Amino acid sequence: MNTNVFRNLSYGVYVVTTLDGSRPTGCVANSVMQITSSPATIAVSMNHDNYTNDCMKRAGVFAVSILSEKSDPSLIGQFGFQSGRDTDKFAGVSYEEQEHLPVLTDCCGYIVCKIIDQMETNTHTVFLGEVIDGDSKGTDPAMTYAYYHKVIKGKSPKNAPTYLSEEETEKTETLAKKETWVCSVCGYVYDGETPFEELPDSFTCPLCKMPKEKFIKK
Amino acid sequence: MNTNVFRNLSYGVYVVTTLDGSRPTGCVANSVMQITSSPATIAVSMNHDNYTNDCMKRAGVFAVSILSEKSDPSLIGQFGFQSGRDTDKFAGVSYEEQEHLPVLTDCCGYIVCKIIDQMETNTHTVFLGEVIDGDSKGTDPAMTYAYYHKVIKGKSPKNAPTYLSEEETEKTETLAKKETWVCSVCGYVYDGETPFEELPDSFTCPLCKMPKEKFIKK
Repeated sequence: MNTNVFRNLSYGVYVVTTLDGSRPTGCVANSVMQITSSPATIAVSMNHDNYTNDCMKRAGVFAVSILSEKSDPSLIGQFGFQSGRDTDKFAGVSYEEQEHLPVLTDCCGYIVCKIIDQMETNTHTVFLGEVIDGDSKGTDPAMTYAYYHKVIKGKSPKNAPTYLSEEETEKTETLAKKETWVCSVCGYVYDGETPFEELPDSFTCPLCKMPKEKFIKK
Repeated sequence: MNTNVFRNLSYGVYVVTTLDGSRPTGCVANSVMQITSSPATIAVSMNHDNYTNDCMKRAGVFAVSILSEKSDPSLIGQFGFQSGRDTDKFAGVSYEEQEHLPVLTDCCGYIVCKIIDQMETNTHTVFLGEVIDGDSKGTDPAMTYAYYHKVIKGKSPKNAPTYLSEEETEKTETLAKKETWVCSVCGYVYDGETPFEELPDSFTCPLCKMPKEKFIKK
């Protein structure tokens, strides 16, 4: 089996949110799809290790904020590469409430769901949600995972279904490249014109906002 | 609820195939996503009315052929807008066998699965498949549903989770357009430079190959 084939499946980039008691929390997901149109239901896949998974099960509800190509990529660092167990993921993030659930202001649409079924695998839960509200916002096109990967140069966190181990990724990607600087926190590959060593010390990862010293040479 | 928000979810375009006894059959699907990476599993949503759904349950296995932007769009007409109950969907279609399952030659990758779980909704089954084989083919980018919709000008068949009723679709799309010719079989909207009336009688729908007289003026 050649696991690179999974890269040919097309996804969007979403922030799935729910409530931890009364505290908003959430994480980045790619695996969201509509299952039925009437009544509308969607499925979301969520790793057992994501704190959002526990919170979704307790709250019984979740919301999906659909990121657009114009959404601030640091949202992906904020929601994708830290845990809601020990971080307030919403710190400094603008959001509104829809059906009592947090929805990011900086997105091109949202869907609010009540969980009506779930299917367990060894690492992920597939939640089936009946849509109770949803709306489009603005006209910016939705961010696809391909756009995130190719244009924003982002990677998958380890809990994502789309995660490929570093070895597999390097096998297909680096090839001719001699030296790259990679954010050790989120995997962002520095791609600017200024040589990395000459960047100011104030440089931070555009994805997860970690400081320059978190980058490692590969 | 504004159902147009569902258009902001990102999908690929796939042909899900299986066996009806020893006869290959299949249909078009958008709702395919990876659930876990190790062992690799994927989920596929399939309408109860699709003959492929019955056959998948009987066969216990299925394959996903991932269409690329260069794949012949008539495959979507062939597999998406007729039923395998009364048609040989593979008539005239080039395919190969992988793990005894039919995989389209004209695709950018395939995944073969054994069904290990399923979840029912009122209209669709969500199948969970453990991947037993898969490979990429060529370097053409995968066709996204957005590409199919915007570049190929295709629509969803009625059984698709992504289907929006004609009324809803027209509300958002036509607006300023005065007169359009639409294929009554697959919904393809004629968009050529030659006025539709002046096309030769031999004109056929580029998606589903139906003759010119199947087009209706809107």
